[in-house]
Amino acid sequence: MSSTRCAACKHLRRRCPSDCIFSPYFPSDNPQRFAYVHKIYGASNVAKILQDLPVNRQGEAADSLYYEAHCRIKDPIHGSVGIITLLHQQIYNAQTQLSKIQAEIAVLSANAQTESKYQHQVVQVPNFDSNLMPQQKGVYDPSTWLSQNGL
Amino acid sequence: MSSTRCAACKHLRRRCPSDCIFSPYFPSDNPQRFAYVHKIYGASNVAKILQDLPVNRQGEAADSLYYEAHCRIKDPIHGSVGIITLLHQQIYNAQTQLSKIQAEIAVLSANAQTESKYQHQVVQVPNFDSNLMPQQKGVYDPSTWLSQNGL
Repeated sequence: MSSTRCAACKHLRRRCPSDCIFSPYFPSDNPQRFAYVHKIYGASNVAKILQDLPVNRQGEAADSLYYEAHCRIKDPIHGSVGIITLLHQQIYNAQTQLSKIQAEIAVLSANAQTESKYQHQVVQVPNFDSNLMPQQKGVYDPSTWLSQNGL
Repeated sequence: MSSTRCAACKHLRRRCPSDCIFSPYFPSDNPQRFAYVHKIYGASNVAKILQDLPVNRQGEAADSLYYEAHCRIKDPIHGSVGIITLLHQQIYNAQTQLSKIQAEIAVLSANAQTESKYQHQVVQVPNFDSNLMPQQKGVYDPSTWLSQNGL
């Protein structure tokens, strides 16, 4: 039976029960996947998180736990928050670039309407949806986030 | 001495040593902060992560651990990966909007150059930096990420 143990039970050097909570999500051919979540969360915390979810959502949870554990091992200071910070910065940069384009289009449209004797097509500039932007203008800062959320 | 115990030592019902690893980052006036990281990571895993870092980076690590624990408690399936997915979607939407604007500007610039007898200002459209975009075009999907990274 030992050859059919999942990666978690192999790692924990225990028998793999037929109703093992880890077995569907931590196959024996990927030992690193369990090793990472075990190092960051511990086996019992991973088991608790999975057990509290409906079976059909446990796979997604195992994936996201592994993603976060992988981020934390790569960047022990920031973990996946480092990725979030980077993405907020990218959105801020995109917003800045888009504002610049919108200002330039406004100039061009004004020129097109006033200077030409021909009927010019006026560009309809889609508004950048401000609801899609982070609430704060600058780069994401976890401390700011914590205080803004009263935490 | 018990009144000066940090939130972690109060939670763990133990004496707070003078060199307590938790004390600087889990003050007694914010018991929830430690309760969250304890629930998701366990005290010993948090202590291990902090102890492996230089003292001047431990505060950032405690903040990011708390942020991730908070996300996991709010969304036990996706945790902070849920935020990352949302941000990737926002960047994808921004890229789509920007492509549309660029196409419309190209039409306007062509009109301005060929139809008018006046010298029109030609808009210089800043290129949207493709290095800032997620490598995959669609919405972020942890399973795709995992397989793309050979994990």
